[in-house]
Amino acid sequence: MNSSGSKRTLWHNARLATLAGDQPWGWLPQGALITEGEQIVWVGEASQLSPELSASIAQQRDLGGAVVTPGLIDCHTHLVYGGSRAHEFELRLQGASYEEIARAGGGIRSSVAATREAGEHELYALAAQRLQTLLAEGVTTIEVKSGYGLSQAAEAKMLRVARRLAGLGLEVRTTYLGAHALPPEYQGRPDAYVKALCDWLPELKREGLVDAVDAFCEGIGFTPAQTRQVFEAARALELPVKLHAEQLSDQGGTQLACEFGALSCDHLEYLGEAGIRALQASGTVAVLLPGAYYFLRETKLPPVQALREAGVPIAIATDHNPGTSPTLSLLLMLNMACTLFRLTPEEALRGVTQHAARALGLADRGQLVAGQRADFCIWDIAHPNELAYYFGRNPLRHTVRGGQLRN
Amino acid sequence: MNSSGSKRTLWHNARLATLAGDQPWGWLPQGALITEGEQIVWVGEASQLSPELSASIAQQRDLGGAVVTPGLIDCHTHLVYGGSRAHEFELRLQGASYEEIARAGGGIRSSVAATREAGEHELYALAAQRLQTLLAEGVTTIEVKSGYGLSQAAEAKMLRVARRLAGLGLEVRTTYLGAHALPPEYQGRPDAYVKALCDWLPELKREGLVDAVDAFCEGIGFTPAQTRQVFEAARALELPVKLHAEQLSDQGGTQLACEFGALSCDHLEYLGEAGIRALQASGTVAVLLPGAYYFLRETKLPPVQALREAGVPIAIATDHNPGTSPTLSLLLMLNMACTLFRLTPEEALRGVTQHAARALGLADRGQLVAGQRADFCIWDIAHPNELAYYFGRNPLRHTVRGGQLRN
Ligand SMILES: [Zn+2]
Ligand SMILES: [Zn+2]
Repeated sequence: MNSSGSKRTLWHNARLATLAGDQPWGWLPQGALITEGEQIVWVGEASQLSPELSASIAQQRDLGGAVVTPGLIDCHTHLVYGGSRAHEFELRLQGASYEEIARAGGGIRSSVAATREAGEHELYALAAQRLQTLLAEGVTTIEVKSGYGLSQAAEAKMLRVARRLAGLGLEVRTTYLGAHALPPEYQGRPDAYVKALCDWLPELKREGLVDAVDAFCEGIGFTPAQTRQVFEAARALELPVKLHAEQLSDQGGTQLACEFGALSCDHLEYLGEAGIRALQASGTVAVLLPGAYYFLRETKLPPVQALREAGVPIAIATDHNPGTSPTLSLLLMLNMACTLFRLTPEEALRGVTQHAARALGLADRGQLVAGQRADFCIWDIAHPNELAYYFGRNPLRHTVRGGQLRN
Repeated sequence: MNSSGSKRTLWHNARLATLAGDQPWGWLPQGALITEGEQIVWVGEASQLSPELSASIAQQRDLGGAVVTPGLIDCHTHLVYGGSRAHEFELRLQGASYEEIARAGGGIRSSVAATREAGEHELYALAAQRLQTLLAEGVTTIEVKSGYGLSQAAEAKMLRVARRLAGLGLEVRTTYLGAHALPPEYQGRPDAYVKALCDWLPELKREGLVDAVDAFCEGIGFTPAQTRQVFEAARALELPVKLHAEQLSDQGGTQLACEFGALSCDHLEYLGEAGIRALQASGTVAVLLPGAYYFLRETKLPPVQALREAGVPIAIATDHNPGTSPTLSLLLMLNMACTLFRLTPEEALRGVTQHAARALGLADRGQLVAGQRADFCIWDIAHPNELAYYFGRNPLRHTVRGGQLRN
């Protein structure tokens, strides 16, 4: 137990979706939790609170019967970039062809050019504004990828900006995605570019900018052989890997990534049987990105039922990016995961908490259990299934990050 | 001109999407507008401001280059109801059949039962909370339908609640939708119910509760012949009509509604050539509801290109309701109208302003022009196309309703 000089806080009169234990939602309808510093030290039914525990509490907060879930985790974003693609979106809806848009300076190259041009200060301001929208919905941990710089300096700039976002009071995991697209100066020389981006990695890591390494393995991206080179560079530095895999075709990228013990494979609309078996064997998380599926009007659904049957953990993320998923609502992704991909509301919530944490290699969050970080959301709803049922509604009352009540 | 004792306000340093005139968006990039009381009295390029006009201004507001659009109008909602259907949503995703859900008390009947049971105070509190979400996105006028009461007393209760919502500082138009579904006590006797709901109308109108009359003309709703009876009852009282038409099949409801000079026909996925010609001839607005299309995973698209070519005004609305469109974001509907229905961003914005006003028979709003109500939105964006491009992001800085700055 704890001396009376502790700073323990009791959060009570709460309906907890702990996501732990055997009950659906890990549901504790008369729940309470105790935090100390940045940690959860006790979770349970209020009636189980022992006299010793009660005596250790320095302050109490009555949550008025609100629903509490783990803090939301957006485990796949491209939040740092310059420019906007709203004009390109408009042109396309006015009937412009892809070539016309490319000629008008659209496509990923426009984001690369704008990101290279933007100063670090400007990039930070843009990303911080985007992040505020995510924070207002209860996001407490976020992953941010590089991949619009595509030179050592510009990739480093993006990753520094991502790191700085942690100053807004959440945890940021950075992912090096040099293998996102071929920069114009390497046109026709993809192998030379892959060698270069691998050569940049040691210094980026030395600067403390890289938590994981990712690539875009696709017909219009990088080949499995090129992806393997990127992963080998990561392995040499003991960096975990992830992969944009099987989004538009089945390249077998998932099997490759699992060979390297990938934290996650992301998108997966075209994932086949062999890929599912690989995920199952390596314990890799399947990250589904319904925002991109919706925005691109895809029709090939990821194999949710097969993933479920194989016991593969499924995470959900915004994939926020200017070209294929300009969304800033992780709650909307819960609804889209249910409506479009037929996840259950509980699977969707686990996808943005428990399994999203695992997709980032973070064992200290994602559920409401003793020993985990005190990151949680307090919602104005009667049941957690409402988080997935509504679309375009934010019932967040408060977020607690590291034991501190925010907004 | 105006005496110096006026209360005129100049809103300047604004980028105006007036939606008036021949330019795309009615764009005035160096715009200003002058309001007096609840009205707009002048709109133009700041440089065109005459000395006399300038002399008439009592106060100024610098909008810092923000984009200004007309206030948003949600012209089709079922905002007043009791209960939630989140559990039904969850059951369905867990694999429950429609019969199992009906046996568990789900479906529209559960909303009717909960609405009948709820006190007027409770219904108001629930609807007001929903409305706050719409207001926070810049909605300044809303339509609210009855249709979960299905008895004279319960329909009147719903409509009184809708009227009371105007106390939150926006205009509310009420629509009587007694012909929404068959109540349990009329099971097997639809004609008797249609007669009853028509008989209730004169008193509901006398109480000042009805601005328009609507019906659900569909295989699972009411027949064209029954719909005609409802419209005749409306015509006898000089009430304008609207129709839930051609959502799941082509019933010819649109032609029927246009025969009665309907303000709007709504949904229209299955609208055929004859319906389009009828809309064109009667000047009726086509209200598209992408939220319901999305949530129901429909695949039949409304005939947008044919409507466009016929010059039929297209409006967009949330169709907020607990069964088929639990959304509270009109901005998200802009994105869905573009992404799913292929409207342009400008068409989508006109759909929630100019054409939505017309769908409600309101000639005094929907554009930024002298003589219209001073209802407008001030947005933190660089261009109005961003309103449709993002999904799950609210860049509203302020709303002005009736000349008053809100939130
Ligand atoms: Zn991505
Ligand atoms: Zn409706």
